[in-house]
Amino acid sequence: MKTAEEYRKQLYKMNANIHIGGERLSRDDPRLQQPINVVTSTFDAAKEPELEGIATATSHLTGEKINRFCNIQCSVEDLLHKQQMTRLLCHRVGGCIQRCMGIDAMNALSVVTYDTDQKYGTEYYQRFLKFLEYFQKEDVVANCAQTDVKGDRSKRPHEQVDPDLYLRIVERKSDGIVVKGAKIHNTIAPYAQELIVLPTRALTPEESDWAVAFSIPADWEDIHQIVRLASMRPRKYLKAPIATFGDAESFTVFDNVFVPWERVFLCGETDMGGRLALQFAEFHRHSYTGCKPSITDILMGATALAAEYNGVENAQHIRIKLAHLIGIAELVNAAGIAAAYNAKKTPSGTYIPDNIFVNVGRRLAGENIFHEWEILCDIAGGIYATLPFEEDWYNEETKEYLEKYIMRNPRISAENQHRLFRMIGDLLASAWSGVELAGQYHGGGSPIMETIGLLRDYDLKPKKDIVKYLAGIPLDDPQG
Amino acid sequence: MKTAEEYRKQLYKMNANIHIGGERLSRDDPRLQQPINVVTSTFDAAKEPELEGIATATSHLTGEKINRFCNIQCSVEDLLHKQQMTRLLCHRVGGCIQRCMGIDAMNALSVVTYDTDQKYGTEYYQRFLKFLEYFQKEDVVANCAQTDVKGDRSKRPHEQVDPDLYLRIVERKSDGIVVKGAKIHNTIAPYAQELIVLPTRALTPEESDWAVAFSIPADWEDIHQIVRLASMRPRKYLKAPIATFGDAESFTVFDNVFVPWERVFLCGETDMGGRLALQFAEFHRHSYTGCKPSITDILMGATALAAEYNGVENAQHIRIKLAHLIGIAELVNAAGIAAAYNAKKTPSGTYIPDNIFVNVGRRLAGENIFHEWEILCDIAGGIYATLPFEEDWYNEETKEYLEKYIMRNPRISAENQHRLFRMIGDLLASAWSGVELAGQYHGGGSPIMETIGLLRDYDLKPKKDIVKYLAGIPLDDPQG
Amino acid sequence: MKTAEEYRKQLYKMNANIHIGGERLSRDDPRLQQPINVVTSTFDAAKEPELEGIATATSHLTGEKINRFCNIQCSVEDLLHKQQMTRLLCHRVGGCIQRCMGIDAMNALSVVTYDTDQKYGTEYYQRFLKFLEYFQKEDVVANCAQTDVKGDRSKRPHEQVDPDLYLRIVERKSDGIVVKGAKIHNTIAPYAQELIVLPTRALTPEESDWAVAFSIPADWEDIHQIVRLASMRPRKYLKAPIATFGDAESFTVFDNVFVPWERVFLCGETDMGGRLALQFAEFHRHSYTGCKPSITDILMGATALAAEYNGVENAQHIRIKLAHLIGIAELVNAAGIAAAYNAKKTPSGTYIPDNIFVNVGRRLAGENIFHEWEILCDIAGGIYATLPFEEDWYNEETKEYLEKYIMRNPRISAENQHRLFRMIGDLLASAWSGVELAGQYHGGGSPIMETIGLLRDYDLKPKKDIVKYLAGIPLDDPQG
Amino acid sequence: MKTAEEYRKQLYKMNANIHIGGERLSRDDPRLQQPINVVTSTFDAAKEPELEGIATATSHLTGEKINRFCNIQCSVEDLLHKQQMTRLLCHRVGGCIQRCMGIDAMNALSVVTYDTDQKYGTEYYQRFLKFLEYFQKEDVVANCAQTDVKGDRSKRPHEQVDPDLYLRIVERKSDGIVVKGAKIHNTIAPYAQELIVLPTRALTPEESDWAVAFSIPADWEDIHQIVRLASMRPRKYLKAPIATFGDAESFTVFDNVFVPWERVFLCGETDMGGRLALQFAEFHRHSYTGCKPSITDILMGATALAAEYNGVENAQHIRIKLAHLIGIAELVNAAGIAAAYNAKKTPSGTYIPDNIFVNVGRRLAGENIFHEWEILCDIAGGIYATLPFEEDWYNEETKEYLEKYIMRNPRISAENQHRLFRMIGDLLASAWSGVELAGQYHGGGSPIMETIGLLRDYDLKPKKDIVKYLAGIPLDDPQG
Repeated sequence: MKTAEEYRKQLYKMNANIHIGGERLSRDDPRLQQPINVVTSTFDAAKEPELEGIATATSHLTGEKINRFCNIQCSVEDLLHKQQMTRLLCHRVGGCIQRCMGIDAMNALSVVTYDTDQKYGTEYYQRFLKFLEYFQKEDVVANCAQTDVKGDRSKRPHEQVDPDLYLRIVERKSDGIVVKGAKIHNTIAPYAQELIVLPTRALTPEESDWAVAFSIPADWEDIHQIVRLASMRPRKYLKAPIATFGDAESFTVFDNVFVPWERVFLCGETDMGGRLALQFAEFHRHSYTGCKPSITDILMGATALAAEYNGVENAQHIRIKLAHLIGIAELVNAAGIAAAYNAKKTPSGTYIPDNIFVNVGRRLAGENIFHEWEILCDIAGGIYATLPFEEDWYNEETKEYLEKYIMRNPRISAENQHRLFRMIGDLLASAWSGVELAGQYHGGGSPIMETIGLLRDYDLKPKKDIVKYLAGIPLDDPQG
Repeated sequence: MKTAEEYRKQLYKMNANIHIGGERLSRDDPRLQQPINVVTSTFDAAKEPELEGIATATSHLTGEKINRFCNIQCSVEDLLHKQQMTRLLCHRVGGCIQRCMGIDAMNALSVVTYDTDQKYGTEYYQRFLKFLEYFQKEDVVANCAQTDVKGDRSKRPHEQVDPDLYLRIVERKSDGIVVKGAKIHNTIAPYAQELIVLPTRALTPEESDWAVAFSIPADWEDIHQIVRLASMRPRKYLKAPIATFGDAESFTVFDNVFVPWERVFLCGETDMGGRLALQFAEFHRHSYTGCKPSITDILMGATALAAEYNGVENAQHIRIKLAHLIGIAELVNAAGIAAAYNAKKTPSGTYIPDNIFVNVGRRLAGENIFHEWEILCDIAGGIYATLPFEEDWYNEETKEYLEKYIMRNPRISAENQHRLFRMIGDLLASAWSGVELAGQYHGGGSPIMETIGLLRDYDLKPKKDIVKYLAGIPLDDPQG
Repeated sequence: MKTAEEYRKQLYKMNANIHIGGERLSRDDPRLQQPINVVTSTFDAAKEPELEGIATATSHLTGEKINRFCNIQCSVEDLLHKQQMTRLLCHRVGGCIQRCMGIDAMNALSVVTYDTDQKYGTEYYQRFLKFLEYFQKEDVVANCAQTDVKGDRSKRPHEQVDPDLYLRIVERKSDGIVVKGAKIHNTIAPYAQELIVLPTRALTPEESDWAVAFSIPADWEDIHQIVRLASMRPRKYLKAPIATFGDAESFTVFDNVFVPWERVFLCGETDMGGRLALQFAEFHRHSYTGCKPSITDILMGATALAAEYNGVENAQHIRIKLAHLIGIAELVNAAGIAAAYNAKKTPSGTYIPDNIFVNVGRRLAGENIFHEWEILCDIAGGIYATLPFEEDWYNEETKEYLEKYIMRNPRISAENQHRLFRMIGDLLASAWSGVELAGQYHGGGSPIMETIGLLRDYDLKPKKDIVKYLAGIPLDDPQG
Repeated sequence: MKTAEEYRKQLYKMNANIHIGGERLSRDDPRLQQPINVVTSTFDAAKEPELEGIATATSHLTGEKINRFCNIQCSVEDLLHKQQMTRLLCHRVGGCIQRCMGIDAMNALSVVTYDTDQKYGTEYYQRFLKFLEYFQKEDVVANCAQTDVKGDRSKRPHEQVDPDLYLRIVERKSDGIVVKGAKIHNTIAPYAQELIVLPTRALTPEESDWAVAFSIPADWEDIHQIVRLASMRPRKYLKAPIATFGDAESFTVFDNVFVPWERVFLCGETDMGGRLALQFAEFHRHSYTGCKPSITDILMGATALAAEYNGVENAQHIRIKLAHLIGIAELVNAAGIAAAYNAKKTPSGTYIPDNIFVNVGRRLAGENIFHEWEILCDIAGGIYATLPFEEDWYNEETKEYLEKYIMRNPRISAENQHRLFRMIGDLLASAWSGVELAGQYHGGGSPIMETIGLLRDYDLKPKKDIVKYLAGIPLDDPQG
């Protein structure tokens, strides 16, 4: 397993294909360091003895100990440990741990490349296994570049005015393919080593050019990452872990990018394109049953602490709201657990979590995140939004005033009061938090996507049949 | 295992201590037959080959095959099967299966009598085992009489103007105890063979007279059951399973009832009284993770069928509402599954489901039941509430009119349209349904009870500590 | 103005065209008296000095004092008084006052017959005025028979397999027209003197046979009322106003009914058919801004009283729920007030309440009624659902037990405890309440109908233009 | 009436008592100009002919035309116009118009100074009128500094460890008083000319030092404003009105500030302190019935436009969400209208809006703001959060890529697509938006404050009496 330092060194050597604010940057640019800190925490975690078996796993290929972010889910326990690791690591970075998407994409590929080979006599699975071996050995950080820009939402890929609005194959060559298009919302991409590209949706038979999956180094020729950064406001005096983190999302352009065959995992099998899109979504929604409870834990802890610091921790309406947060966190958690215990072993050997449970879990999380913010906003009061800047707390002219008047529960020091409410400002009223909120709502699929997923997969017929039975309508009545 | 017919015969021989509408009745009174039909279905189910292992279990005492409603939960699988059985059987009776409370009470006794003996050197557990043997062999139907009338809710048991407002021991004798008080909301009691009496809440040291648990035949001397019936409107022509069921709840008065020692399972150990109350609630809430999804299944099936019969099954807003029902059913289900997999083995050997998961599951169910009704009401339209009486559909003067004008989706026969909307009327606009709704909200503990349970058991400190860590507040700072 | 007694006498003389439970009845049948009591309260109210000007009005035709249920809205004050009267009178009958639909239909006719004449040179308005004079002089109780049975909801009237599934003209004769079809959910119809028949929806040009409006005596030849009753369980001992009321809804069949021209108010003008349907809905939704707050008042009062009787009136979570009920009642009320103050005077002189405000008001009411029930259910506890029957409270064998154990707040007598919880059972767990709930959700248009109304009438363009302005998108940019 | 330019010039001459980020600044600092632009729009509006009578009013003191932000509410129409103006002006600045708090404070003073004089023989009202004359003539921009820092929320002002945690009188002198404390969340204060200081809550008799109200120039000696800025990210290329605005909130310290008697409007009358706090809150909540619908208008317009630009404006679930936004906006609007029409004329001649209606309106707004954000987030999709920075759209290396791939509805130009989603990012994912959201939730009182207000003012007894009547419980029964 790699160290954080080794990872960082590799990053810094990559080609400068990062565009931010009109400039082209390499990955050692200071603006990227807060986001990178999120990812380095995943390397650190794998070294901690108390996270042994949680943040690490055993490769089913080699038997070696690997970072769990490189593991193929080979059992119920693997799925449970992944969920548990995700919950723990998000606590440490105050939000999205970012690295799950790569391994979720790898798992989806493990299932679908196998099945594609069975159906079409292709050899994607062997290629995939070779890539997986490299991936595990090198402890690769990968983005999953799934979401196409999608153009007119009322049209299918092949109906768009511009066919590139969904990434597609523009040329098939002897040594590989050439692809064109753009993928967005690419969390982790600016400091990932690989971009794993998957289709974004189900495809019709005429859309074989859009049925493409591959992995490619993130600084590969003709790839342009245009990056939106959103980091916590850095601190000069009041150092705190929360302020050391950030997020960066790439709008990734593939401008006729050549992909060699050994990196191509799907090429034209349209039915498998849709399956791959879905399979990734389901693994990723299972990851959300780890991260969303973790976010709720943080909002819940902040709510409880704000109530304590404000001196009102026993107010009944506040306690009822805390119970509501507990309810959300643990129902989403339960959905993840039930999905793991009801996982199915696929022909490839990979375990896939139960689809219904991951969808009801992710959906509940998405439908509640704004309300969770509301609860913290309610109990914290407005101070997080109007708190003077950090420097004023260390300016001789204003310091004493602020320390005098921030006091609430007299047992708590002024500095700690300051620390808490500044952090709540980071959580609810920063550019970072606005981006994070969108991710908590849309990431892995907005609630409407899970609604669609449930309506597709849940069998309503047995439920109608129960009602027919009770009402005395014969089940086989053609007029019933 | 007993047959339905044997059970019914035993019932009919019991003393006539049932009061309904000013009369004293024996249990063969026609008014009680609809409710009794619910219970007989549990005997029938245990005979069905396809429910082998679901509706039946193996006694850990005797190794005999028993009805699962008599089983002590000795494994994760036992808990999962109980949940699954409950979901399946409620489908068959269109609502609460009623018999779970007895076995939930038995499981709670198995845990707490053992622990009480360990702590106090008593011998309740041996008594309990003897009773359990009888219970399993005789396939006993039992009520759990837990809820006291409670008097002034702002006062504790010993503070009430009338001490009997919580059932209590009024005399301790050589051969047993004498108890006085009343228990209410006693589902199944009018046609149960045993009443298992448990405390209703946590108790303080001065409340030893209220710390009492026992089981007693339901027609025992000095017990008076005053019964509220709520059955489906019986059908003359349009026979349907739904119309054959009903519910009866007893207001059970214990007017200086003598209980022999061999039936006494707690007598004065106040700390254990509270534990017993809670332990029953938790087993019972786990049962709700089976029955509440089942109720939702029925409401969901009725909604889907009404949409189909109305010709609007593809309307997007209707489909979104169906997805919402799916979400509720499967999140509550997931909570039950997670509670089972995270069950703990107690010193008695009985497995108790995880407390947090049962509480978040039951709470979600309770908080959504009115909304579930709303969805069915919305999609069905008002016709279920204004549907002419059954007889008018079979009266020559009006029959043709009704059959002509009930037609919606032309593929569905008039009779089936009639059948569906009459059943929805039973589900939403009958005296039975009003009682059922109250049960679905309050039974096993209203949402506020689960809220209290969660706030008692969920550890908020680790959540606060995560926030302190992120904010840079030292965990050991006395001012933090 | 008529007295209640005069009204009742007239009713009893009408032809026996009421079908209930397979029998044909005249209107003096005992089963109809509870519902009739609701309507007689509107005659009584008009005689009370303190309701002068509220329950009465001055006819704009004759200058005579009339019952406000016969008044055409000629001013903002008229609308405000109607709203206020509705709120007050519903209090007295514990639910829907039923008589508003007739006058709402009359007001809609006053507007649309006038406009139709202007557009088509017809003479409906004069006919209408003649009818109105009779209506006011005779203090007529009228139903509005609007809702067609509608058949397949995915088809328009002229697309149905059976053209009668929407009521239509089957013959135009020299002295009148012949109509065929059925109208449902006809509240008050079984004890109304007139049925005012209106179209149910917008119509296309090929649907002129369905564009028909008229008024006809409720016992007219070839009209068959098939009636669903839902009255409170009558009391033998514990007399209370709530138990004297009931509801009856008719499924009204028009089997080739002849309507003389002087009673025909629309005949073939399809565009005006849709307007009439809408105009009635809007007047009726304005009535709901009176009755729905009244229902909320009752639920709120019952919640507050149950909390007091239970001894927990100061619990914070209960008080917050009461505030929620206040919020619903007064927002719906505010919507009605704003609709009245923003009323428009139509060419006929009739004032129509503002469409947007009545729709947002009725919609909020509909979307909350299940939640309002939930609140009362929550605070009352389950006792309303399991309360033994009235007779058991007066049976010597059980009376003392029930009076002893019903005690809660010791200041409140057992009888009053009994009275309150029995009434809550009437409100939440009776066949009547199930029907009432459907009416509160669907009556005057379910929330989805107001949603459709709002999306039709609310102008979103100015809102988009504000955003374009702020974003710097030129308002006249063809690409914007 | 002043011009925007005159106002700006006056500002720039004020003493430099603004602290931001560790520096002391005068008001011409570039960082303050975006917030100041919000206020200058109120001067500009008063000059526009089409806003005559809306943005202007007639002084009841002098008969002169004045800016409506300086007007005392002397009629129902005044209240309606204020509400209307607020809704219109917030549209122009994309959020809170900020200036309402000053005039709301003035109106509260007009009512309470008068009543205080009547009760205590003081002469506050004359002082107030003199100040009002100046206020109107000079077209003063005022902050209302109400919210104290409040220390331990479980303690009253006089119980705090540090008595300054609520601002208080520390000395009474012949020529005035000396006050000490701090007020927070002081919107507009950094660029206001006057700070109007009011008590924050009801006071007990021992809290006369805290019963103090006055107005003082915002740069007066010993006043220190420590300011939190939150402006939109300034634009270099893509100029748009939304990007020119911002917000600044002051943490205002009063360090032994001397206030001359002519500026003191309350000094020690504790009962009137509470009334003044409430009276301001109620005027201010009425202002929210103008601004909150305006915010909803913007969110609604952005939602509708995003749906159109995404090509999915006709999707039913999106349209239902738009209807929900319409419902919120117009219910809050209706509450404001009803509050105005039910206003009461106080002895001072000032009209106060109805308390119940302003509370239910403001409460609904507060309870929905997070959900309104959710709707826009849902329909816009995640692009607003991950949109590359403005400069990248004008960088030759990336410009074409972004313009190609932003395309959705092909009728809309790339620039307009860019404009819309950048603005939505400003609305939902900027530091400004985080602050604005807190203001929309807490400003004028969080929902819990309106809940408390409603429970204080709404009379539940008549509601209980309706229920007693219906249940047959005598209204005068001492046991009822």
